[in-house]
Amino acid sequence: MFLTRSEYDRGVNTFSPEGRLFQVEYAIEAIKLGSTAIGVATSEGVVLAVEKRVTSPLLEPSSIQKVAEIDEHIGCAMSGLTADAKTLIDHARAETQSHRFSYNEPMPLESCTQSLCDLALQFGEDDDEGGGGGMSRPFGVALLIAGWDREAGPVLYHTDPSGTYVKYRCMAIGSGSEGALTALQEHFKPEMTLAEAEVLALSTLKQVMEEKVTATNVDIAKVAKNYHLYNQDEVEAVIARL
Amino acid sequence: MFLTRSEYDRGVNTFSPEGRLFQVEYAIEAIKLGSTAIGVATSEGVVLAVEKRVTSPLLEPSSIQKVAEIDEHIGCAMSGLTADAKTLIDHARAETQSHRFSYNEPMPLESCTQSLCDLALQFGEDDDEGGGGGMSRPFGVALLIAGWDREAGPVLYHTDPSGTYVKYRCMAIGSGSEGALTALQEHFKPEMTLAEAEVLALSTLKQVMEEKVTATNVDIAKVAKNYHLYNQDEVEAVIARL
Amino acid sequence: MFLTRSEYDRGVNTFSPEGRLFQVEYAIEAIKLGSTAIGVATSEGVVLAVEKRVTSPLLEPSSIQKVAEIDEHIGCAMSGLTADAKTLIDHARAETQSHRFSYNEPMPLESCTQSLCDLALQFGEDDDEGGGGGMSRPFGVALLIAGWDREAGPVLYHTDPSGTYVKYRCMAIGSGSEGALTALQEHFKPEMTLAEAEVLALSTLKQVMEEKVTATNVDIAKVAKNYHLYNQDEVEAVIARL
Amino acid sequence: MFLTRSEYDRGVNTFSPEGRLFQVEYAIEAIKLGSTAIGVATSEGVVLAVEKRVTSPLLEPSSIQKVAEIDEHIGCAMSGLTADAKTLIDHARAETQSHRFSYNEPMPLESCTQSLCDLALQFGEDDDEGGGGGMSRPFGVALLIAGWDREAGPVLYHTDPSGTYVKYRCMAIGSGSEGALTALQEHFKPEMTLAEAEVLALSTLKQVMEEKVTATNVDIAKVAKNYHLYNQDEVEAVIARL
Amino acid sequence: MFLTRSEYDRGVNTFSPEGRLFQVEYAIEAIKLGSTAIGVATSEGVVLAVEKRVTSPLLEPSSIQKVAEIDEHIGCAMSGLTADAKTLIDHARAETQSHRFSYNEPMPLESCTQSLCDLALQFGEDDDEGGGGGMSRPFGVALLIAGWDREAGPVLYHTDPSGTYVKYRCMAIGSGSEGALTALQEHFKPEMTLAEAEVLALSTLKQVMEEKVTATNVDIAKVAKNYHLYNQDEVEAVIARL
Amino acid sequence: MFLTRSEYDRGVNTFSPEGRLFQVEYAIEAIKLGSTAIGVATSEGVVLAVEKRVTSPLLEPSSIQKVAEIDEHIGCAMSGLTADAKTLIDHARAETQSHRFSYNEPMPLESCTQSLCDLALQFGEDDDEGGGGGMSRPFGVALLIAGWDREAGPVLYHTDPSGTYVKYRCMAIGSGSEGALTALQEHFKPEMTLAEAEVLALSTLKQVMEEKVTATNVDIAKVAKNYHLYNQDEVEAVIARL
Amino acid sequence: MFLTRSEYDRGVNTFSPEGRLFQVEYAIEAIKLGSTAIGVATSEGVVLAVEKRVTSPLLEPSSIQKVAEIDEHIGCAMSGLTADAKTLIDHARAETQSHRFSYNEPMPLESCTQSLCDLALQFGEDDDEGGGGGMSRPFGVALLIAGWDREAGPVLYHTDPSGTYVKYRCMAIGSGSEGALTALQEHFKPEMTLAEAEVLALSTLKQVMEEKVTATNVDIAKVAKNYHLYNQDEVEAVIARL
Repeated sequence: MFLTRSEYDRGVNTFSPEGRLFQVEYAIEAIKLGSTAIGVATSEGVVLAVEKRVTSPLLEPSSIQKVAEIDEHIGCAMSGLTADAKTLIDHARAETQSHRFSYNEPMPLESCTQSLCDLALQFGEDDDEGGGGGMSRPFGVALLIAGWDREAGPVLYHTDPSGTYVKYRCMAIGSGSEGALTALQEHFKPEMTLAEAEVLALSTLKQVMEEKVTATNVDIAKVAKNYHLYNQDEVEAVIARL
Repeated sequence: MFLTRSEYDRGVNTFSPEGRLFQVEYAIEAIKLGSTAIGVATSEGVVLAVEKRVTSPLLEPSSIQKVAEIDEHIGCAMSGLTADAKTLIDHARAETQSHRFSYNEPMPLESCTQSLCDLALQFGEDDDEGGGGGMSRPFGVALLIAGWDREAGPVLYHTDPSGTYVKYRCMAIGSGSEGALTALQEHFKPEMTLAEAEVLALSTLKQVMEEKVTATNVDIAKVAKNYHLYNQDEVEAVIARL
Repeated sequence: MFLTRSEYDRGVNTFSPEGRLFQVEYAIEAIKLGSTAIGVATSEGVVLAVEKRVTSPLLEPSSIQKVAEIDEHIGCAMSGLTADAKTLIDHARAETQSHRFSYNEPMPLESCTQSLCDLALQFGEDDDEGGGGGMSRPFGVALLIAGWDREAGPVLYHTDPSGTYVKYRCMAIGSGSEGALTALQEHFKPEMTLAEAEVLALSTLKQVMEEKVTATNVDIAKVAKNYHLYNQDEVEAVIARL
Repeated sequence: MFLTRSEYDRGVNTFSPEGRLFQVEYAIEAIKLGSTAIGVATSEGVVLAVEKRVTSPLLEPSSIQKVAEIDEHIGCAMSGLTADAKTLIDHARAETQSHRFSYNEPMPLESCTQSLCDLALQFGEDDDEGGGGGMSRPFGVALLIAGWDREAGPVLYHTDPSGTYVKYRCMAIGSGSEGALTALQEHFKPEMTLAEAEVLALSTLKQVMEEKVTATNVDIAKVAKNYHLYNQDEVEAVIARL
Repeated sequence: MFLTRSEYDRGVNTFSPEGRLFQVEYAIEAIKLGSTAIGVATSEGVVLAVEKRVTSPLLEPSSIQKVAEIDEHIGCAMSGLTADAKTLIDHARAETQSHRFSYNEPMPLESCTQSLCDLALQFGEDDDEGGGGGMSRPFGVALLIAGWDREAGPVLYHTDPSGTYVKYRCMAIGSGSEGALTALQEHFKPEMTLAEAEVLALSTLKQVMEEKVTATNVDIAKVAKNYHLYNQDEVEAVIARL
Repeated sequence: MFLTRSEYDRGVNTFSPEGRLFQVEYAIEAIKLGSTAIGVATSEGVVLAVEKRVTSPLLEPSSIQKVAEIDEHIGCAMSGLTADAKTLIDHARAETQSHRFSYNEPMPLESCTQSLCDLALQFGEDDDEGGGGGMSRPFGVALLIAGWDREAGPVLYHTDPSGTYVKYRCMAIGSGSEGALTALQEHFKPEMTLAEAEVLALSTLKQVMEEKVTATNVDIAKVAKNYHLYNQDEVEAVIARL
Repeated sequence: MFLTRSEYDRGVNTFSPEGRLFQVEYAIEAIKLGSTAIGVATSEGVVLAVEKRVTSPLLEPSSIQKVAEIDEHIGCAMSGLTADAKTLIDHARAETQSHRFSYNEPMPLESCTQSLCDLALQFGEDDDEGGGGGMSRPFGVALLIAGWDREAGPVLYHTDPSGTYVKYRCMAIGSGSEGALTALQEHFKPEMTLAEAEVLALSTLKQVMEEKVTATNVDIAKVAKNYHLYNQDEVEAVIARL
C-alpha cells in the first residue's frame, strides 16, 4: 500500500487518487518536528509564548528567534523551518509597510494573513514570474499571527503550508501542539485578562516542554495595541506567577 | 490493473488509454472530502447553505468562510481546497468589476462562470504567460455560483475541476452531496418560494451533517437581486422554521 | 505486450516503434465516451442533431450546449471534453470575425476548419509562443462543422484530435457513432431535402440513445444559408414527423 | 534485446549505442502506414499519382488531399500524417512566395526542398526560437516534390523525417512503396514521354492498391512547366489508357 | 527501508513523508567531510582557527584559504566545498560594500549573515531571476562568521546549508567538530581574554587534527575591531603558548 | 554490466563513472555507419575522395552530395548524418564569408575548423541563446576539411562529434575507415604529387567499397589554391590511372 | 551497493547521502584518461611539459595542442577533454585582455585562475543567463596555469572540475600523474634553476610515458616573465640534457 502511495507523494503539485496533495501534508509534518508555540487571544490583547531549543550551552539563546514583529500592531510565532518563516515574515513586513504608505492606516489583520497565504500557495513549477518568494516546494512552516485590528480588536490567526488560515481564540503549533491543545481547551476562558492569558500560555508550554522553563528557553510577546517582546525580567515575572 | 492505471494518473495532462484525464478526476475526489454545500434556485432568488466544520471549540467559527460574495448580484458556495477557491473568487471579483467598469452593467452570470472555467482549464505545464492564476495542477474545488442575471433572473451554476459548468435548479457538492441530491430530487419544486427554499436547503444540509445544525456551524446566503449573507439571528430564524 | 506499448503512450509527442502517436489515439478514445452527434448535408443546407445527457432532473437542460454557432454561416456539434470544445469554438469565432473584418466576406468553410486543426496540432512541450490555446495535451474533442460556403454551398467537415479534417456527406461522432454510421450509410441519399435530413438525423440519434428522445434531451440546428438553433416547438415538430 | 533498445527509442534526440536515432526511424514507420504515392520524372515533366483511402461512402473524396500545389512550378505528393504534411507545405508556400518577391524568379527546386528539410530537422527540445513550425517530435511524413526548375528542368525530390533529400528519376512512398519500387525499376525508362509516365505511375499504383482504381480513389498531378491537378475526366482518360 | 527513503532524497526540494528535506541534510554531510574550523568569541574579539589539509609537500600551503576577510570588521572560516564558499563570500563582500556605500557605516553582523542565508535558501529549480548565485542544489558549506558589530560588539554566527543561522559563544564545524565541541564546552569561559581564546581554539584544533599542528597547516584570524590574519610568526607564537 | 552502463548513456551531457560521455561516443558510432571518405594532403594541394551509396537505380547519383565547397579555398568531405553535415557546412560558409567581409582575406583554416567545433560542442540542454545551430544532441557527423591556408599552404583537418580537431597528412572516415587507414599508412608519402594523391585516395577507396568504383558512385574534389569538384570525365580519367 | 550509489550519480548537481557530488568526481575521472602534463615552478620561471599522443603516423603532431598561451605572462597545460579546455582558455584570454584594457596592467595570476574556476562552477540546470560558457555538465578538464605575477613572481596553479584551485611548487595531471607526483616529490628542490626544472619536468614525463620521448610527442613551454613555447630544436636540446 505504501508503494502505490509513494507514486504520488513526490510530485509537489499532483493529486493522489483520493484527492490529496501529499507534499503539502509532508510539509505539515515538518512542523510537527518544530518547537512548540502557543497563542492566546483575550479582549485586552493577544499573548504568544514560544519554546526555544537551546541545543548547546555555547549557543546564544537570544539569537534563536521564534517570535517576530511584523508591524507595530502585528507579531507572529513560528514553528517548522526557520529559514522559510523568515521569507514569509519579510514578505508580510513589506506588505504592511506598503499598506501604511498607500492608505495611511495599519493593515487589517485578515489582509495581512491573506497575503501570507497567497504566497504560501504559489509554490510549484510555474512560479517564474520573478516574484520574491517563488518556491519549488510548500513552505515548511506554520505561523500564529497575533494582532490588534482597527475594526476587530485583538485577533489570532493560524496559517499552515496549504495556504489556509483560520481565526482562533487560542491555538498551539509544533511538536507539543497536541498536548497543548487539550490543556488550552480545558483552561481557556474568553473572559480572561491578559495577565491570566500569560499564565495560561506559559503553563501550557511548560507541560509540553521536556526541559524546565527558564527565562532563556522561552520567549513571550504580546500585542496589546502594539507588539511587545518581553525582556528577561518580564519573562521571569510571568514564570514566578505560574 | 491498478498498476497500469497508475502509469497515467500522475501526468497532469496525459490521457489514459480509455481517454480519461486522471488528475482532473482525482481533483474531483478532493471535493468529496470537503464540507457540504447546497444551492436552491427559485423565481424569487437563490439560496446557498453551507456546512462549517468547527473542528475545535477554540476556533472562531466566523473565520471559516465557505460562502462568499463575488459581486453585488453574485455569490458562491465552495467545497474542496479553500485556498484554491480563494484564487478563483479573487479572479471572478476582478472580472465582474472590470465588466461593470467597461460596460456599466452587472456581468451576466454565464460570462462570469465561463471566465472561472477558463481559468480552471489553464492548468498544466504550459501556462507561463504570466497570468495571475497559472496552476501546475487542476484546482481542487467545486463552486455553486448563485446570481441574479439581468436577462435570466435567478440562476445557479455548478463548476468542477474539469472546467465544465452546468445550470441547475438545485445542487449539492462536498462529502454529503450524494445523500443531499437524493433529498433535493424528492422535495424540490420549481414553484417554491424563497422561504421554502431556505427550509429545503437547511433541512437537506441537516440530514447529511454529522453534528447538530446550529447558528455557528452553518452559513446561509441568498441572492435575491442582491447578495446577502444571513447574520446569526437570521440563521436561527431559519433553523426555527425547520 | 501491453507493457512495452505503455512505454510510448504517455509521451504526448513520441512515436511508438510502429510509428503511432498514442496520446492522440487516447484523445480519440475520450470522444468515444462523449454524447452522440450527427450531421447530414443536403443541397438545401446541413442539419446537426445532438444528444444531451440530462443526468439529473435538477439540471437545466438548456445549459448543456453540445451545438454552437461559430459565425452567421457556420455552426458546429461537438463530442468529448466540453471545456476543450469551448476553447476551439472561441478560437474559430475570433478567426471568422477577423476574416469578415479583413476581407468583408464570410470565411470560407475550409479556412475555418483548417484554422481549428492548426490549433489542434499545436499541443506539446514547445508551444510557449504565447498563443491563446497552447495545450500540453491533444484536445479531447471531435467537431462536426456545418456551414454554407459562398463557393461550395452547404458543407460538413469532421475534425479529430490529430488535426486532420475531411468533408462528409453525413457523419456521426461520440459513443453511438458506430451504430449511427451504419444507419446513415443505409438511409442517406444525396438528393434528400432538408426536412428529410432532419428526420434522418433524429431517427438515427433515436436508435443509438438509451433514453427516449424528447425536446429536452436533444438539440437540433441547421445551416441553411444561416445558422439556426431549433426552439422547443421546432424540435417537437421534428420528433412528431419521425 | 528489445528491452535495452527501448531505453533509447523514446528520447526524441538521443543516440542509441549503435549511433541510431530511433524516434526518426519510428517516424519513418508512420509513413509505411500511409497511403501510397508515386512520382515519375521525364524530360517533358513530372507525374505524381496518389492513392486516396475513401474509408466511407459518406465521405467526400475530393476533400482528401494527398497531392498539393506549392507554387506554380512545384507540386508535391505526401504520405504519412496529413496534418504534419500541411505544416510543411504551408512553410514551402511561404518560402517560394518570398523567393519570388525577393528575386523575381521561381524558387530553384533544391532550395525549396532544402528549406523543407531544414524545418524537418529542427524538432527537439530546443526549438523555442519562435519559428512557426517548432515541433517536439520529427514530422511523420514523407514528400515527393515535383517541379520544373529553371536550370535543371523537370526534377523529382524525395524527403523523409530525418531531413535528408535525394533526387530520383522515379520514386514511391507509403504502405505500397516496396512493391511499387520493384515495378518502377522494371518498367521505368528515362526516355519515356509524359503520357507513358502517366500510365506507368497509375498502373504501378493499381498493382499495390487493394481496391480497384477509379477516378475517385486516386489523384494525378503533373508539373510540365506548371503544376496541374487532373480533373475527373482527365483521370478517367488515363485509367482508360492502362 | 533505505529504498523508500531514497525515493525522496534526490529531489532537491521535496519533502519526505516525515517532513525532511534530504538534499539539505546531505549537503550538511558534505561539511562533515571538510577540514575543521573553530571560532571563539570573547569580549575583546573573536578568534577563528582553521585546519589546512596540506595533502602534498609540493603544494603551496598559503594558497589554501580556509579563512577569509569579508569586510574590515567581518571575517569568516569555512568548511565543506571551497568553491561554494567563495561564491558566498563574494556575495557577502558585495553586500557589505554596498551597505557602506548606502549608509556610510559598517554592515551590522546579523544583516550580513541574513543576506548569506537568503542566498543559501534560494537553491532549487526556480531561481532563474538572473541573480548571481542561483544554484540548482544547496550550498555544501558551513561558515563561522566572526565580526565586530557597532551595537553588539564581538559576535560569532554559524550558518549551514539550510539557510539557518544562530549566534554562538564558540563553535566548531567540519570533520572534527564533534570532538571539538566537547572540548569547547569543557574549557570555554565567557570571561576569557582574546589571548586565552587563541590558546583554546588552537589546542582544541590540535586535539582533533591527525597531524601535528605547525605554522603551515593551520591559519588563525581574529576580529578585534578589525579583521586580522595572523602571519607565520604570530601563529608560531600561539603554538608556543599551548 | 551493460545494464549499469546504460544508466549513463542516455543523458546527453552526463559523465559515466569512468569519466566518459556516452552520447558523444554513440554519435561517433553513427559515423561508422556512414559512407567512406578519404583525404590526402600534398604540397601541391589536398585531394578528397568520397563514396556515394547509390542504393537504387532510380536515384539521381549527382544529388548525393558527400563533398561540398565551404569557400573558394576550403572544401570538405562528410560521413554520418547528412542533414547534420549540412547544418555545419552552412555555419562554416557564413563564417568564412563574414571573415572575408570583415578582414578582406580568406579565413585561416584553423579558425574555420575551430568555429565548426565550437558549434559541435554547444549541444545540450542549455543552448537556448538563439544561435542558429542549437542542438539537443551531438552532431552525428565527421568532417574532413581540406583547404589552402595563406600561411600554412595545403592542410587537412579532421573533426568529430566531440568537438575536437586534429591536422592530418591523410585521413579516412566512415564505415571503411579502418581498412583505409591501414592502406594509407602503407602507401602515403609526404613528397607525393597531387596526381599521385588522386590515385592513392581513389585506390584506397576502391579497396574498402563493396561495389566497383565508377564515375557515378564516387566524387573527387581537390583544393589546389581553389576548391574544384571533378566532373565525370575527370573522375573517369583518375579511374583509368588506377 | 553500486546500485544505490548509481541513484545519485547521474544528477549533475545532486548530493549523495554522504555529501558527495558524483558528476564532479566522474569528470575528474575523465582527466585520468587524458595525456600527462607536468608543471614545475622555480624562482626563474615556470616550466610546463606535456605529452602529445600521436596516435597515427598520418597525424600532424604540431596540431595537437596540449599547452597554450593565455596572455603574454600566462600559459597553461591541459589534460582531459580538449574541447572543454579550449572553452576555458578562450574565457581566460578574454578576461586577461579585458583586465589589461581596464587597468593597464597584466592580470594577477590568482584573479585569472579564479575567473576560470567561477566558470567551471557554473554548470548545472540553471545557467541560462546567456553567459558564454553555460554548460550542463562539469568541464572534464584539469589545467596547470603557469604565470609570472607582478607581485608574486613565477606561480603555478592547478584547477579541477570542482572549481577549486591550489598553488603548487610542482604538479602533474593526467593518466601518468600518480607516478609523476612520486618522482617530483623525490627530485624537486625549491632552489632549482629553470634549466634544472626543464630536465626534471621532461625526465618525469619520460618515466610515465609509454613511448620514447621525442621532439614530436612532447611540448615544452616556459613562463619566465613571458610565455614561450619551445620550438623543435629547443625541445631536442632539453632531451639531449636528460
